[in-house]
Amino acid sequence: MRARDLAEPFPIVTPDTDAMAAARAMAGQRLPGLIVCDDDGRPHTILPGSQVLRFLIPAYIQDDPGLARALDADASDQLCRRLVASTVRDLLPRPQDLDELPVVAGDATSLEVAAVMARLHSPLVAVMDDGDGPDRDRVIGAITVSRLLEHLLPA
Amino acid sequence: MRARDLAEPFPIVTPDTDAMAAARAMAGQRLPGLIVCDDDGRPHTILPGSQVLRFLIPAYIQDDPGLARALDADASDQLCRRLVASTVRDLLPRPQDLDELPVVAGDATSLEVAAVMARLHSPLVAVMDDGDGPDRDRVIGAITVSRLLEHLLPA
Repeated sequence: MRARDLAEPFPIVTPDTDAMAAARAMAGQRLPGLIVCDDDGRPHTILPGSQVLRFLIPAYIQDDPGLARALDADASDQLCRRLVASTVRDLLPRPQDLDELPVVAGDATSLEVAAVMARLHSPLVAVMDDGDGPDRDRVIGAITVSRLLEHLLPA
Repeated sequence: MRARDLAEPFPIVTPDTDAMAAARAMAGQRLPGLIVCDDDGRPHTILPGSQVLRFLIPAYIQDDPGLARALDADASDQLCRRLVASTVRDLLPRPQDLDELPVVAGDATSLEVAAVMARLHSPLVAVMDDGDGPDRDRVIGAITVSRLLEHLLPA
């Protein structure tokens, strides 16, 4: 089976997408992360859920999570409001090389998909259209590690 | 809201659990990873899905995923059969310090949970019983980053 057959629809955001909308998509669909594409549909990077939390939670609390106990529900709401005036670009970690992105061509075999996930310790790969049409190199969906295992394991 | 209220039931494995059973649990319930506990129910580590793939896929293919194209479905089945004679212990990466595990007490606040996930870049935290009963320090469930965002984001 090829990557394009295993790929499932996945919400795609761009660096300009509203940060709150992106976080809501993760929460609402219970996703481990989102695929970030440039305006032309080419994969830019992956935004893992923990990165949204790294943006929300001040560094001194990340360093000493017990300090969070001193904050109440109002403080929590206030931290989350930081998402309102922000975009996905603000949430992203430092730029990555495209070579090191978890991305496969549509005709990659399931073992090739497994090798990319294993190499990059990624819970998710983006699948790109590798046809000759106008959608070439655009992301057509994603494969999660659990979806891949479901396919690979003997019945 | 406290960690124990956000925690959801989560399959728990031990280092002696059959590796195939662990991989099937991940696949069947579409989980990003599993919590590994010692026989006494105390958290030992997290087994991320990509780690199962690192065990299955030979290192030379991880280094050059394109080589996977030379392998057929039979080879794929053969690689997966490595799980049959193995246990979760065989799948685990090098031991981690307990301090650096994504684990929170049942009465941790949601912001504290967020701080732990952010600090450790983890898509998942294990929640421990912090009562005075016989289950103290045992894992009672887990919180995924998407579940936490669902709770934290304003409605």
